[in-house]
Amino acid sequence: MKRIFLLITLLSSINSFSQTDEQVIREIYTQSLTNGKSYEWLDHLSNQIGGRLSGSLNAEKAVAYTKAELEKLGLDKVWLQSVMVPKWVRGAKEFAYIETAPSGFGTKKTTNVNICALGGSIATPAMGLKANIVEVKNFEELEVLGKENIEGKIVFYNRPMQPDVISTFEAYGGCVNQRYMGAVEAAKYGAVGVIVRSMNLRLDDLPHTGSMTYDDLPVNKRIPSAAISTNDAELLSSMLKLDKSLKFYFKQNCKQLDDVLSHNVIGEITGSEFPNEYIIVGGHLDSWDLGDGSHDDGAGVVQSMDVLRLLKESGIKPKRSIRVVLFMNEENGLRGGNKYAEVAKQKGENHIFALESDAGGFTPRGFSFDCNDASFNQILSWKPLFKPYFIHYFERGGSGADVGPLKSSTNVLAGLRPDSQRYFDHHHAANDTFEHVNKRELELGAATMTSLIYLFDKYGVNPISNDEQIKD
Amino acid sequence: MKRIFLLITLLSSINSFSQTDEQVIREIYTQSLTNGKSYEWLDHLSNQIGGRLSGSLNAEKAVAYTKAELEKLGLDKVWLQSVMVPKWVRGAKEFAYIETAPSGFGTKKTTNVNICALGGSIATPAMGLKANIVEVKNFEELEVLGKENIEGKIVFYNRPMQPDVISTFEAYGGCVNQRYMGAVEAAKYGAVGVIVRSMNLRLDDLPHTGSMTYDDLPVNKRIPSAAISTNDAELLSSMLKLDKSLKFYFKQNCKQLDDVLSHNVIGEITGSEFPNEYIIVGGHLDSWDLGDGSHDDGAGVVQSMDVLRLLKESGIKPKRSIRVVLFMNEENGLRGGNKYAEVAKQKGENHIFALESDAGGFTPRGFSFDCNDASFNQILSWKPLFKPYFIHYFERGGSGADVGPLKSSTNVLAGLRPDSQRYFDHHHAANDTFEHVNKRELELGAATMTSLIYLFDKYGVNPISNDEQIKD
Ligand SMILES: [Zn+2]
Ligand SMILES: [Zn+2]
Repeated sequence: MKRIFLLITLLSSINSFSQTDEQVIREIYTQSLTNGKSYEWLDHLSNQIGGRLSGSLNAEKAVAYTKAELEKLGLDKVWLQSVMVPKWVRGAKEFAYIETAPSGFGTKKTTNVNICALGGSIATPAMGLKANIVEVKNFEELEVLGKENIEGKIVFYNRPMQPDVISTFEAYGGCVNQRYMGAVEAAKYGAVGVIVRSMNLRLDDLPHTGSMTYDDLPVNKRIPSAAISTNDAELLSSMLKLDKSLKFYFKQNCKQLDDVLSHNVIGEITGSEFPNEYIIVGGHLDSWDLGDGSHDDGAGVVQSMDVLRLLKESGIKPKRSIRVVLFMNEENGLRGGNKYAEVAKQKGENHIFALESDAGGFTPRGFSFDCNDASFNQILSWKPLFKPYFIHYFERGGSGADVGPLKSSTNVLAGLRPDSQRYFDHHHAANDTFEHVNKRELELGAATMTSLIYLFDKYGVNPISNDEQIKD
Repeated sequence: MKRIFLLITLLSSINSFSQTDEQVIREIYTQSLTNGKSYEWLDHLSNQIGGRLSGSLNAEKAVAYTKAELEKLGLDKVWLQSVMVPKWVRGAKEFAYIETAPSGFGTKKTTNVNICALGGSIATPAMGLKANIVEVKNFEELEVLGKENIEGKIVFYNRPMQPDVISTFEAYGGCVNQRYMGAVEAAKYGAVGVIVRSMNLRLDDLPHTGSMTYDDLPVNKRIPSAAISTNDAELLSSMLKLDKSLKFYFKQNCKQLDDVLSHNVIGEITGSEFPNEYIIVGGHLDSWDLGDGSHDDGAGVVQSMDVLRLLKESGIKPKRSIRVVLFMNEENGLRGGNKYAEVAKQKGENHIFALESDAGGFTPRGFSFDCNDASFNQILSWKPLFKPYFIHYFERGGSGADVGPLKSSTNVLAGLRPDSQRYFDHHHAANDTFEHVNKRELELGAATMTSLIYLFDKYGVNPISNDEQIKD
């Protein structure tokens, strides 16, 4: 009798390896594409709430909404994790123009251009700031120009994203130091302001915001910084070629207020066999304020929420504890990601796998993994399971900002990698809106994430769970 | 000296296999992404010309425009190939409503719905057609219902595209017989008209046209056929559940005219070593009339044109003759594809490889190949060259309608396979328009096609060119 029982166990175990994973994953995709909730949730987040800058009323509405929706799912626990976040406000809309001196028999002319303050920037003086402007492509050019050519002027950073780089995130990585460090570098030479070409591969009229830092600059050295649309960057550059002495005027009204209390939103299905091994999936609940944050990162939020729902709908009872974590303040502080990791460490929670979706709601192409060799080999053995869904990208690399602080030598961090070609058309701009998210693409992403979570739950992470592998 | 020369030849040959292909392909992608013409050409085709139904003035404008643009490229030959094409015209916009009988104390009600005539359909009578309507999901249900339940009524085909099929083209394949054969099947049972749910995975208000046939139905048995938007298909279906006796009214004014003369547009770079081996790349110049045909198949047309330009810009001098072929009348007759193959056969032109782009201008994912085993193995050996461009789909399957007639036992036919998730949101509908094509995605497709053409030109096709392989 015992022998027969063992045989059945063995057969069902063989079956669960060679067949069931394929069937389970097929069921997950079917559930997501026919019965997914991600798109409906995103509709609410984007169209009923809107942009969710840290510390704003909308961010708090998003906390309340997603907590209430998670509570409807019958998870084992749903809770808020307190975290203090920075509160920066844009204030009245920015205004800017280029002013050219009279030439020949002409008169002085002004041309309005589209700008937006960078997140974290100070305001201009109340009457705005008008000064000569000097164009550079990088910090090395600043050094060559030196104080004598920069002092009292506005620095215009105009290095475009490289169009022939296939991954647009890589192209972004090659430019974003202009935005993030541009004020610190320009202030060294006495610049009075910074204008940065928007991180956008397309020529259009929309300025793209994003975070910047003053590092340890004393308050009286801080200079206002704004992004200019790519079309207006081209215009400004060509006008500067005709007239180096033109003036640039801008006025912005943003302000850094005191930190305020906010929250990460967390839901959990407690593991049936290994409740102290944690697997998390998440995105960030905050967004910039110009659009409604549909791609960045409403998509990642609703996909992560749907992962736990899809596991339940597909009849999967996790062995390990699976959490959805909706992080607050990824965009301008990473306070939520840091807080989550800090609490996890305090409690001695063993986070074996963390997955983030923060690269847009486009067609999923695969994942990027931050892990050791043994884990990566294990992951590669799962790759064929994803082939029917046109998911082929399994490479080592970065994961996501929010899950980064959970890094250990044995665990696995991963980031969903959707098609990136359109992402920076919308990123941090007024056109990051709901109508640019496709329902099927979003749902395919949620299913792809759920499938990977299912595999990590079932097989654990090498080498920690070697005993588990043998036992199974 | 001779030995040294041989050694150099050998080394450069090794180099050209292990390095140069990678460098050449990198150059092709850089050219397309920084200096591509496809988007500019598509802007003209879509926004200056518009929908290009076979036999229309717009189709002729497209012939003239693309010929003129090809002539600017410095190819060896550019010419038109005459072909007679069917001419079907839509006439005045269609009109339709659902009419429900008075119920309770209510009055008769009409609800307007969005329809469009299917390509090739006859008109309704001038006053329109009003009849009861019977909903079915497939032809088997027609048979079960039989003449007694169908005669004198309109048949409403309402089988949706299956959302859980990952390839939307496969989901389309599972539904399109309703549209193409629906009239023939319904007429057998005495139906007076056909309404077909649009082939669209999304719920929206746009009807999607497409070709239908009367096969060998005598003229007096032919019945008018139209597509209804997915939203209105859902509405009609739910109203029928309440009231089986409701009436459906529609009026359409379309007409099949006599065939007219049109043209395929062809450009050629004549091969330097094997001018009698032909490699062609193409898309179809005609489109449906509701949108501007940007995805179907303006994208394929401009990508194919850019393949020849990109080869030149990348400094490649083809050994074989490379042709771009812009086929006329793919949508409702395939006359252009058939004519091209017929002439090629007459002239004894050896077409070793034909590539079609007719699946939208979205991010390229790879190719589908129709070929023998030897050729497919050769192709698979090239797959690693495409990995840096996230091109991973190399599978056997269909190629394209226009190149199909060129099929032989030794040659290779292929179709570009872009991401398909959004394609049927636009296919054959009024929103197949320029703003839904992304410049980078279009250019990546052109580069991917050019790279494959480059490889086929360099290495030829097995087993025909075995001598060439050894010699090289
Ligand atoms: Zn983000
Ligand atoms: Zn087509």
